[in-house]
Amino acid sequence: MSRFLSAKYAHLTPYTPGEQPRDQQYVKLNTNESPFPPSPGVQEAAAREAARLNLYSDPECTALKAAAAELYGVLPENVLPVNGSDEILYFAFLAFGDEQNPFAFADVSYGFYPIYAAFCGVPMREIPLDKDLAIDHRDYLGIREHILIANPNAPTGTCLPVDEIEAILRANPDRLVIIDEAYIDFGGVSCVPLIRRYDNLLVIQTFSKSRSLAGARLGFGVGCEALIRDLNTVKYSINPYNVNRMTQAAGVAAIRDNAYYENNARRIIRVREETAARLKALGFTVLPSKANFLFAASDKIGGEELYRTLKSRGVLVRHFGKERIRNFCRITIGTTEQMDILLDNIKAILDAKGC
Amino acid sequence: MSRFLSAKYAHLTPYTPGEQPRDQQYVKLNTNESPFPPSPGVQEAAAREAARLNLYSDPECTALKAAAAELYGVLPENVLPVNGSDEILYFAFLAFGDEQNPFAFADVSYGFYPIYAAFCGVPMREIPLDKDLAIDHRDYLGIREHILIANPNAPTGTCLPVDEIEAILRANPDRLVIIDEAYIDFGGVSCVPLIRRYDNLLVIQTFSKSRSLAGARLGFGVGCEALIRDLNTVKYSINPYNVNRMTQAAGVAAIRDNAYYENNARRIIRVREETAARLKALGFTVLPSKANFLFAASDKIGGEELYRTLKSRGVLVRHFGKERIRNFCRITIGTTEQMDILLDNIKAILDAKGC
Repeated sequence: MSRFLSAKYAHLTPYTPGEQPRDQQYVKLNTNESPFPPSPGVQEAAAREAARLNLYSDPECTALKAAAAELYGVLPENVLPVNGSDEILYFAFLAFGDEQNPFAFADVSYGFYPIYAAFCGVPMREIPLDKDLAIDHRDYLGIREHILIANPNAPTGTCLPVDEIEAILRANPDRLVIIDEAYIDFGGVSCVPLIRRYDNLLVIQTFSKSRSLAGARLGFGVGCEALIRDLNTVKYSINPYNVNRMTQAAGVAAIRDNAYYENNARRIIRVREETAARLKALGFTVLPSKANFLFAASDKIGGEELYRTLKSRGVLVRHFGKERIRNFCRITIGTTEQMDILLDNIKAILDAKGC
Repeated sequence: MSRFLSAKYAHLTPYTPGEQPRDQQYVKLNTNESPFPPSPGVQEAAAREAARLNLYSDPECTALKAAAAELYGVLPENVLPVNGSDEILYFAFLAFGDEQNPFAFADVSYGFYPIYAAFCGVPMREIPLDKDLAIDHRDYLGIREHILIANPNAPTGTCLPVDEIEAILRANPDRLVIIDEAYIDFGGVSCVPLIRRYDNLLVIQTFSKSRSLAGARLGFGVGCEALIRDLNTVKYSINPYNVNRMTQAAGVAAIRDNAYYENNARRIIRVREETAARLKALGFTVLPSKANFLFAASDKIGGEELYRTLKSRGVLVRHFGKERIRNFCRITIGTTEQMDILLDNIKAILDAKGC
């Protein structure tokens, strides 16, 4: 820490992204990336823009907003494109949180939520998952905090149906309900259509997962016009040109190539279900997942030991040290071939332990 | 404004970027973009990365940091790459500003500085430029605020020599001195080498202007390791993957192709000097500029009228409504051909007014 850091940040704990070790080639199943490259149309569009980088990007993201609005079945005024969905989460904590407006979210969810709350000075309450490590929507009815739910939840993968989200919206008309749908395209049902009826709903989407654009950084906020205007005011107070030209063009092209990505999502869902069955056959507890990952635990091997042993064998999964979930590993769904390698290694590890 | 916006932002005025009208093709001299495209190496590197966008970008920007450190003659620990230099300015206000640590900057400078201060709740003091619209470094000696100076200054273009910056650093050992060198490559001398001797110096650089990457969004903070660590903590509390894969690759390639950009900067300096002489010949007052723009006023036509009339003729320059500089227009230096069009139009406008 320098001698100039503001006292307000003296005890800051920043986020730890999934590790990206360079000591060897890993089968990388730790950051929920898509195993499929972006569509050829995306690659062409981004390359074309690369010739025009001397000109600023459109701060309004006009073309991208129009395309995303069509994809989501809303108006351009309902959409704010951002530099990855982390950015819109941060904007939301800034814009809507303060001492009088705390946030509530699950005790086991995206690890960045409590970091945003602490960084922005927003009081928070963590609501425990139920005994099956799922969100019980009844815990969110008529509460005093703004609500933030990852749906499907991460790292667990479980998903609430739209009618339960709607019950939360109805029971908290004066609280904001933010639904982080980063993983919605892998079998969940989006609540974007509800923004027409609920002015307290903000939906967060990303092109990092189902649309193979993690490296381009592209997320969206979707909500009623007034909410989007507030978030836009925050954007224009921080970084008006937040989405670069290449990513804007890549986003438009990805929407045009939607069928390619829908097909990839179907492939991932199929491999996920196969992988879940194979893990269960090895005695694993596997939470029901609507995401591109599985959250799995075995009583034959601890989560940290499994993570470490897999890593030593060239397979990266993610382990979280948090008490309630330390027996689990989060495993990204890759290609069938990657899953075969994972399963072969898990079998060998269990065999070596004599299980 | 939605009913959920935090009261702390009720009176927020966000930044207004230079206009990007779409009603016709303009000779665009209003946002200080380079008239030269990025080098072929940059275009290839970005296009190559576009095939790998399914994978997250390196949050540490390892390769880019190493290349930038070499370019700046510092260590990788002294460099933080960001999503455009606006982002590092914001990080600096967040990290180092608070009620006890106000910021001081010139009354006429980059219009985002007071917006950051207001947005981050940092008290500010605006120090008037001298009678020639230049910064007098003596106004910044032994003051109680952190200091932020655009050098060259924008929109005026005037530049302080390194020994005057060093005098400010020495006279304020317990205050942070932030030098925003967005335009330094057009004839000024960078104070980056001073970071080795002054732990209170943060230099901000951008690849938007001299390196033709405005549309890629790439800026840098350069300073002692402790300052960079603080800014990195802020980054990891907001948006760890802030610089996308394509931009990281473009940045590395731009540094490799440095000779191309140095040559472009020399061309712009030459055209700037020619344009200044031609404007003076038409009776304009032109401030001495070390940037890729000129700040010019005529007593034959008001700044706003000149801006509006040029716009109606298809030439965009930038006018600022602020009292002290309302007679001026800021004119980006483009190609010789663009400057010919500008000058021809100015002549015609003055002729039509019978000047």
